[in-house]
Amino acid sequence: MTRDLTIAEVRLTPILVADAPLLNTQGVHQPYTPRLIVEIVTADGITGVGETYGDTKYLEPARALAERLTGRSVMDVNGLFGIDLAVDASRVEGRTDAGGLRGVQSAGKLRLSVLSAFEVACLDAQGRALGLPVHALLGGKVRDAVEYSAYLFYKWAAHPAGVPAEPDEWGAALDPAGVVEQARRLRQRHGFGSFKLKGGVFPPDEEIAAVRALAEAFPGHPLRLDPNGAWSVATSLKVAKELGDVLEYLEDPTLGTPAMAEVSAATDVPLATNMCVTTFGEIKEAFTRDAVQVVLSDHHYWGGLRNTQRLAAVCAAFGVGVSMHSNTHLGISLAAMTQVAATVPGLHHACDSHYPWQPEDVLTERAVFVDGRVAVSDAPGLGVELDRDELARLHRRWAEDDGWLRDRDDAAAMRTAEPHWRTPVMPRW
Amino acid sequence: MTRDLTIAEVRLTPILVADAPLLNTQGVHQPYTPRLIVEIVTADGITGVGETYGDTKYLEPARALAERLTGRSVMDVNGLFGIDLAVDASRVEGRTDAGGLRGVQSAGKLRLSVLSAFEVACLDAQGRALGLPVHALLGGKVRDAVEYSAYLFYKWAAHPAGVPAEPDEWGAALDPAGVVEQARRLRQRHGFGSFKLKGGVFPPDEEIAAVRALAEAFPGHPLRLDPNGAWSVATSLKVAKELGDVLEYLEDPTLGTPAMAEVSAATDVPLATNMCVTTFGEIKEAFTRDAVQVVLSDHHYWGGLRNTQRLAAVCAAFGVGVSMHSNTHLGISLAAMTQVAATVPGLHHACDSHYPWQPEDVLTERAVFVDGRVAVSDAPGLGVELDRDELARLHRRWAEDDGWLRDRDDAAAMRTAEPHWRTPVMPRW
Repeated sequence: MTRDLTIAEVRLTPILVADAPLLNTQGVHQPYTPRLIVEIVTADGITGVGETYGDTKYLEPARALAERLTGRSVMDVNGLFGIDLAVDASRVEGRTDAGGLRGVQSAGKLRLSVLSAFEVACLDAQGRALGLPVHALLGGKVRDAVEYSAYLFYKWAAHPAGVPAEPDEWGAALDPAGVVEQARRLRQRHGFGSFKLKGGVFPPDEEIAAVRALAEAFPGHPLRLDPNGAWSVATSLKVAKELGDVLEYLEDPTLGTPAMAEVSAATDVPLATNMCVTTFGEIKEAFTRDAVQVVLSDHHYWGGLRNTQRLAAVCAAFGVGVSMHSNTHLGISLAAMTQVAATVPGLHHACDSHYPWQPEDVLTERAVFVDGRVAVSDAPGLGVELDRDELARLHRRWAEDDGWLRDRDDAAAMRTAEPHWRTPVMPRW
Repeated sequence: MTRDLTIAEVRLTPILVADAPLLNTQGVHQPYTPRLIVEIVTADGITGVGETYGDTKYLEPARALAERLTGRSVMDVNGLFGIDLAVDASRVEGRTDAGGLRGVQSAGKLRLSVLSAFEVACLDAQGRALGLPVHALLGGKVRDAVEYSAYLFYKWAAHPAGVPAEPDEWGAALDPAGVVEQARRLRQRHGFGSFKLKGGVFPPDEEIAAVRALAEAFPGHPLRLDPNGAWSVATSLKVAKELGDVLEYLEDPTLGTPAMAEVSAATDVPLATNMCVTTFGEIKEAFTRDAVQVVLSDHHYWGGLRNTQRLAAVCAAFGVGVSMHSNTHLGISLAAMTQVAATVPGLHHACDSHYPWQPEDVLTERAVFVDGRVAVSDAPGLGVELDRDELARLHRRWAEDDGWLRDRDDAAAMRTAEPHWRTPVMPRW
């Protein structure tokens, strides 16, 4: 036991990773999206890795935090969250997070989104130093594999002409047939057993038709529809009524806890959210009003893996289900999601992941889905290895960007195809 | 990293420890109280220790559990709680736990009370094997010492004549002057800064007078009164009104969430509980009705240190305070309480502990309170060492007992002095 678990160095590497032209109610994914890779190196030279949002507003506090970590122990993850980390509230307070579609922004949520990558990197370093998988540090896995759902998107065949972009192999999906075909290919390739459609893109009747088509193509498989709050209460109830027989849950049909509670009171279709319950402070109102039946956790903005366990505990105490939300992410975060999901007893819904949409990664080996599941690694730490050449290549892309891709903006991306596009006023329908 | 963390052996040692004649609303402590010491030994010969209730109803499932643990990893504490551990529900369901004064008994709570000692022993073994304190395994301490309150009891000078018992040095405390004198000595010896009086023993006016006397003797110090649910709603509100200016909180003035909610709605005095919220299943009703403002956690019946952290997370999300309950316990449990309390950010109330009342312990060194605080050990595991001679002596006492002390029964103990005593019907006043 002569290890030295002191943090000797912290490295931050912002990168841009290729992203497909996936549509949502606020616009379309840009051809490249920013992520931040965090490396924490102990005095013994052991390196732990973490990953989070890479937009400028995250990079600034991440840099400030990195400077304050040397000399601390990688074991001290609770203490991380007590660090007085200044966040420029004027950049976030009250605004909706257009890029992330994950509820109202706040300085607190931005702070946790930054801290989470450092917490994951600390846990990875702990595991490597102690020869233990991260799940063991979180009390031990209760399952050997974590199930993910196929994340279906309306999408264009390609990013708008004239915009630098990587080609993708998925083609367009703009109608029920396209959505079913995409689902079929995702299932064929990864074995997914449940399907989630990112909605809010087309008028509700078209999306209802797409879900109906999925139900016919994959009878008995759990289906979800997520319009990111694009609907009124009345529209939400109409969709719930029409799809109630095939939906596992309806995700964020409408915005805000009061409206969600109104929908919830009038339908038996379970409501899930990653928009009205995105912080511990939003739980009390939502749970006491029975506004949601499933919370989609996300270790990035909930503040790491231990906070994800805490959220799961709160949900369990209130009989609220738990599953996982996903923004565009790479293999480090998929490994982190899988490790913590493995420790949550009441995880009864497949998790979401954008990972199958990411052609690029910073790992030497891509994660693999078998029957829609990712095996829980028992290797030390997260069980992943950085591909430093690829990390350097993606960082160069970030460094050479003139600035407009460094901050995700789905509306701006939409305007490259539809110059008059404006972020829709909600409810859109 | 050639450690072998496999469980090779589990040792259970029931003991009887001396207990003072402390009074509560159900009777009086017996001269000896049963505890169970759990030792978990890894293949490398590292031993972790835990402690819980030692009554027969706990010993039976503990023995069944012990037989099933060899071959498992000490790291796998989440998995412990998934073990199908049969508990004889007919012995507990629906009955009030007379000995523990900790709410309605249930098979689930009994099961967790057993499992918790094994979880703590696993965490101690983990820490010893990895060279880390238990708090580091729980994410790291956020404070260097944990504050405890002075636990004041009405008490007799001695156990009834004719009953084998150890003498105690505290004398009687049966009126305000006796309570103040006890408080003064406890504060002098251990430096406690806050005081809790176990009430429900005398008519409310006498206990109000005792708290008033404490307030005069220790102006500005936080005071608590806990009648273990002995009062009606009306009496609870009368006491709250009369003592509102000096009480930090009123603990379980009345029984059950509906009655607590009624009291809570009509007073500004915070209500604490270790009787109406004693399991995760009881949280929802109590929190949605705002029945309690402080939950007194107890790692024994909440199911260990990680569950204590989970409970703290639920409380934090609902703006409910958290502190710690205590039954008669020894130094292993005090170390466990201190380690987990050190990791809970929102611990704003001093914890309860019976430890100053226990003249006997199974450790080579007794825990020390300085200014009412126990320093958070950074030694591997819990930072305690078993005194095997003392453990053997206290086990012999258990083995030689003819049976009546092996199951705590405060009413039976009372009947040795007052033969016609019956457990009072609640509300008593």
